[in-house]
Amino acid sequence: MPEMMRALVKPAPGPGFEIRSAPVPRPGPGDVLIKVRTGGICGTDLHIAEWDPWAASRMHPPRIIGHEFCGTVVETAPDVRGVAAGDFVAGESHVADGRCRLCRTGQAHICERLEIVGVDRDGAFAEYVVLPAQNAWKMSPDVPPDVAAIMDPLGNAVHTTLAADLAGCTVLVMGCGPIGLCAIPIARRAGAARIVAVDVNDYRLALARRMGADRVVDARDERDVPRVVRTLTDGVGADVLLEFSGSPQGLHAGLAALRNGGFAALLGLPHQPVLLDLTNDVIFKGVRLQGIFGRRLWETWYQAAAFLAAGLDIRPVITHRFPMERYREAFDLMRSGACGKVILSVEADA
Amino acid sequence: MPEMMRALVKPAPGPGFEIRSAPVPRPGPGDVLIKVRTGGICGTDLHIAEWDPWAASRMHPPRIIGHEFCGTVVETAPDVRGVAAGDFVAGESHVADGRCRLCRTGQAHICERLEIVGVDRDGAFAEYVVLPAQNAWKMSPDVPPDVAAIMDPLGNAVHTTLAADLAGCTVLVMGCGPIGLCAIPIARRAGAARIVAVDVNDYRLALARRMGADRVVDARDERDVPRVVRTLTDGVGADVLLEFSGSPQGLHAGLAALRNGGFAALLGLPHQPVLLDLTNDVIFKGVRLQGIFGRRLWETWYQAAAFLAAGLDIRPVITHRFPMERYREAFDLMRSGACGKVILSVEADA
Amino acid sequence: MPEMMRALVKPAPGPGFEIRSAPVPRPGPGDVLIKVRTGGICGTDLHIAEWDPWAASRMHPPRIIGHEFCGTVVETAPDVRGVAAGDFVAGESHVADGRCRLCRTGQAHICERLEIVGVDRDGAFAEYVVLPAQNAWKMSPDVPPDVAAIMDPLGNAVHTTLAADLAGCTVLVMGCGPIGLCAIPIARRAGAARIVAVDVNDYRLALARRMGADRVVDARDERDVPRVVRTLTDGVGADVLLEFSGSPQGLHAGLAALRNGGFAALLGLPHQPVLLDLTNDVIFKGVRLQGIFGRRLWETWYQAAAFLAAGLDIRPVITHRFPMERYREAFDLMRSGACGKVILSVEADA
Amino acid sequence: MPEMMRALVKPAPGPGFEIRSAPVPRPGPGDVLIKVRTGGICGTDLHIAEWDPWAASRMHPPRIIGHEFCGTVVETAPDVRGVAAGDFVAGESHVADGRCRLCRTGQAHICERLEIVGVDRDGAFAEYVVLPAQNAWKMSPDVPPDVAAIMDPLGNAVHTTLAADLAGCTVLVMGCGPIGLCAIPIARRAGAARIVAVDVNDYRLALARRMGADRVVDARDERDVPRVVRTLTDGVGADVLLEFSGSPQGLHAGLAALRNGGFAALLGLPHQPVLLDLTNDVIFKGVRLQGIFGRRLWETWYQAAAFLAAGLDIRPVITHRFPMERYREAFDLMRSGACGKVILSVEADA
Repeated sequence: MPEMMRALVKPAPGPGFEIRSAPVPRPGPGDVLIKVRTGGICGTDLHIAEWDPWAASRMHPPRIIGHEFCGTVVETAPDVRGVAAGDFVAGESHVADGRCRLCRTGQAHICERLEIVGVDRDGAFAEYVVLPAQNAWKMSPDVPPDVAAIMDPLGNAVHTTLAADLAGCTVLVMGCGPIGLCAIPIARRAGAARIVAVDVNDYRLALARRMGADRVVDARDERDVPRVVRTLTDGVGADVLLEFSGSPQGLHAGLAALRNGGFAALLGLPHQPVLLDLTNDVIFKGVRLQGIFGRRLWETWYQAAAFLAAGLDIRPVITHRFPMERYREAFDLMRSGACGKVILSVEADA
Repeated sequence: MPEMMRALVKPAPGPGFEIRSAPVPRPGPGDVLIKVRTGGICGTDLHIAEWDPWAASRMHPPRIIGHEFCGTVVETAPDVRGVAAGDFVAGESHVADGRCRLCRTGQAHICERLEIVGVDRDGAFAEYVVLPAQNAWKMSPDVPPDVAAIMDPLGNAVHTTLAADLAGCTVLVMGCGPIGLCAIPIARRAGAARIVAVDVNDYRLALARRMGADRVVDARDERDVPRVVRTLTDGVGADVLLEFSGSPQGLHAGLAALRNGGFAALLGLPHQPVLLDLTNDVIFKGVRLQGIFGRRLWETWYQAAAFLAAGLDIRPVITHRFPMERYREAFDLMRSGACGKVILSVEADA
Repeated sequence: MPEMMRALVKPAPGPGFEIRSAPVPRPGPGDVLIKVRTGGICGTDLHIAEWDPWAASRMHPPRIIGHEFCGTVVETAPDVRGVAAGDFVAGESHVADGRCRLCRTGQAHICERLEIVGVDRDGAFAEYVVLPAQNAWKMSPDVPPDVAAIMDPLGNAVHTTLAADLAGCTVLVMGCGPIGLCAIPIARRAGAARIVAVDVNDYRLALARRMGADRVVDARDERDVPRVVRTLTDGVGADVLLEFSGSPQGLHAGLAALRNGGFAALLGLPHQPVLLDLTNDVIFKGVRLQGIFGRRLWETWYQAAAFLAAGLDIRPVITHRFPMERYREAFDLMRSGACGKVILSVEADA
Repeated sequence: MPEMMRALVKPAPGPGFEIRSAPVPRPGPGDVLIKVRTGGICGTDLHIAEWDPWAASRMHPPRIIGHEFCGTVVETAPDVRGVAAGDFVAGESHVADGRCRLCRTGQAHICERLEIVGVDRDGAFAEYVVLPAQNAWKMSPDVPPDVAAIMDPLGNAVHTTLAADLAGCTVLVMGCGPIGLCAIPIARRAGAARIVAVDVNDYRLALARRMGADRVVDARDERDVPRVVRTLTDGVGADVLLEFSGSPQGLHAGLAALRNGGFAALLGLPHQPVLLDLTNDVIFKGVRLQGIFGRRLWETWYQAAAFLAAGLDIRPVITHRFPMERYREAFDLMRSGACGKVILSVEADA
């Protein structure tokens, strides 16, 4: 084991990152040490890059960033069971404390003392990372590394999509970033009869079509999304809204497009409080809303693994790939929006 | 049967009512004619009195008002089964069309073409009213008429309260009008371990205490309601919010007081769109919200009847009683807030 | 409208049927008169043919039989709304009373006073049949008549399959008659990751493979079905059992093959009480069982229609077709087991 | 800490126990050492006493028995968090492995590799016992030790009772041993409108009445239990069956007494396979059955603690108390059936 490694680091409060040499971390009790292969860049990483108010209020640099990744276990603490050196694993980035009431009742995904890899503790855009053993999910060797690297956002999509009962439903996918794009084929496999995908970006709308949306709506052209949905559904409205945009416009249009008794799973994070017409959009219609955070630990992982084994193919969502050293280009591309998921390869040959 | 009757009428667009003579209505196919005994005044009636924007946009005067009531069936259409002349009945004020997709899948309470008694069709503050037979719920003769008169708001409370699983839970009742007050003993019977009731009105807080709230919070004095709730719950927060206030302050405090993974049933109708911090109050916490409208047809009625038969006593919620002719005093009292449910007696001797 | 029609009739207690001339029935209030196009033969019809103890205890001949069918509405009672002459419809064979507690709480499929078409009232193997209007489900003209004729058993499959949450699950389909065969692609569309189908009949096992089962088990050869399932699932067992066989062997093997916490939907009707090891197969494992009867009225129909519109193809399940006059051949074929669904065409040119 | 302690031991295969001196056990990683105060005798202990076929097939003597108990933590392993020496704790007797799929998806109560205290590992009828720290549930000091000693069977009752939605329901409690008796007030608090309790033992029927059953049925006198239930429910039947008897007669009567669409939670363990009329009692009626094992880890414990804090009083269920040395009398009393829960005090002064 080398003593030092390359890592992508937020060196101090303020915008930007740098590649640094950092000590290879050591596993504590219950931990594993993973040699990182590839990682995925998340929208959160962009907020950290730009040092937005959320990042400024939560993070304490210096911090190695990155939380979507896969790699190979190279060392385990003596008390670890079930994961061994040599295992190919994907990382779950949410570290639950295991002892709060939520953790003890099957809801560890909303643990009261959650730590996030690459935010609250050192992350995975580095040659090595330490994780609690349970956060290292063993992957089938059949899964391509680029897919294994994005099990975390794939899990977001699985969690959001399976929060509703979709059998025979019309599903509205609001926002076609990588998570929304993954949600399209998952919704199909989970019973959706009709999938309508909405975005305001040509590149992503083309990907939505490729992922299998029955109807793609460019909200710049078709501004009355609820009307489009009602036209498709004999005037009734969508059964289910999967909200990935986090934008007020997306939320308004999505809720207005729901039928009476509809269900909305909300994953996209609005930057500001949002003005909602609860009376007309939620109460009179008897609508149910559910906030979605992270991945159900560990139902979501079993479900995602089962879908992949059964043929779910999310590779079209992955559109670009850079070595970690060229992170600036990768982040610039993310900012342009002309991409799906962007991969950073950490291993020299990955 | 007389040809004419006394009725409380909205005579024309604009504030106010008047007592008028009106023709006794005739039952059409599937209908029953009911001799009204007593009625309850709802907050909606107050909006109609004042001709607020909602009333102005929806109602077409002249219209007999009133939708909470009980009475005796005096005539049934030839095709009616299951209800007969002489039956003591309470009225369900929401008339579902029976043929839309919602009606055909057990969700008639959010029928796409719902009509409301006393709003969209003539109401029950009159000597007689016509209802579809299925909207006339047979009451046990053991139920006092004043209680039978308010099965409709009692049903709102049952619907809201039973939307959540309350066993062993800390329940926050936000807003102690008649529906919120009824929700307190229902929540207790449905398993709540601790009930916290919030309002800003002395009269209602005293009633909340009498209905069995474990802790009553006057939000004028204890302004940080979430902190009060966290203090009572070892820092965790409420498991369930029952929102009856419809006020932005109530919604904000209620959602902020919920624990991660909590549930909120929303019945109170905000007059305006409300600014919600979805990111922190709903998404990060994995909270579920459900809009509640009317009563489940007819689960709620079976449940309410069963609770009454098992000893549920909501009589303390009924604080005042006026003959219909003194409706002005009744509405003025409602405006003052120094009351629980106000009853209008329609029958001379009721 | 002619006065007389051809009909397949159980003329008197005892085995056998005959083709008779019978009066064309007249629609009563709320009814529609349907000109029948084609019908499907159900296992129940075989029991009626053979006059087994169930048939002998329940039926009162003479009775026109047949309850799976489609046709065209030719007349409606004056009070009927929502269905009109000329509509192409499929029949729901369970006539609920609409007034019992179950009907009033969204559970009309287990109405306390259910009547079955072709059993308790005259059926559809005839040129015309009368149904309550709500039991005539309007079909898209895109659906082939042979498929429309078997919406009733397709609905059984939808009801059974969607009783469970199948996303990412291993599903065991026990019994590959027409309903079990339909369940295979429905389970796939509703999220099943792996489908294992079991039968003891070559013809049906071949159809199960064609319908998309991942693994087909001939229980005559592979006698230890639970072991086969455990081998496929890393020793865990199936997540969900869909029981269509009604045989003690099928039930035992199916329950033994379930994992801890598994779910079983039971549709197949055992002819006798069955000896179950509740302690080991249900209680220690925390298994849930649900009896499935008929179709959810009318969720199941909306779901089935949505699946058909989205491309569900059950035509391979339909293997044979006879004109009604050749019913003896059709029933003999059913007895042989070398068939999927057998269609009877009633219209001369259907 | 002494080196040796008194313990109630199954010394070798075959009937009977003996009081022995045994080494005080030492806590391993993750464990706590508890000084036992009092314990409760379970029906399972009786099976172990008599060395029935189940005990003979599962246990490997010598083994200290006893799994219902409370005590004080006297030592914790260095890696233990959240429990400390001096804590008053109740024991959860089911030790889950924490790593199987069930444990990782919130279903540790049906862990694939469950160990039971006093059966698969040394138990608590001894001065000291070692448990994994998470199995030591911190009790409020307000809870009387005899109640804390039976949190395990109280948890069985909570788990069984809350498996159903009881609001406004008629609940049939079949079998009035200590678990069934605890279920009566829990069902009441969870919303049951009417509770019917059945047994064949005068002593227990008197206790059932005392615990609050609305109607107590001695099945020796009123042999047609389903008829009794239908008479109480306008011919409809019970909404929910809580099955604690484990007897074929109890199961048959209970299932026959359920209404269409009813729910049955099965906890009582039949000694033999049971002949069930699935067709008439489960499938035609659309009934749901759920096997109940142990306690939901740890929802059930939070719920039980909340009910106790809110005033649930199960002390009347505890009818007798013996020092451990007089275990023979205690077990003889259990065999006689003329008791509720029998407590063994282990501490000299407890």
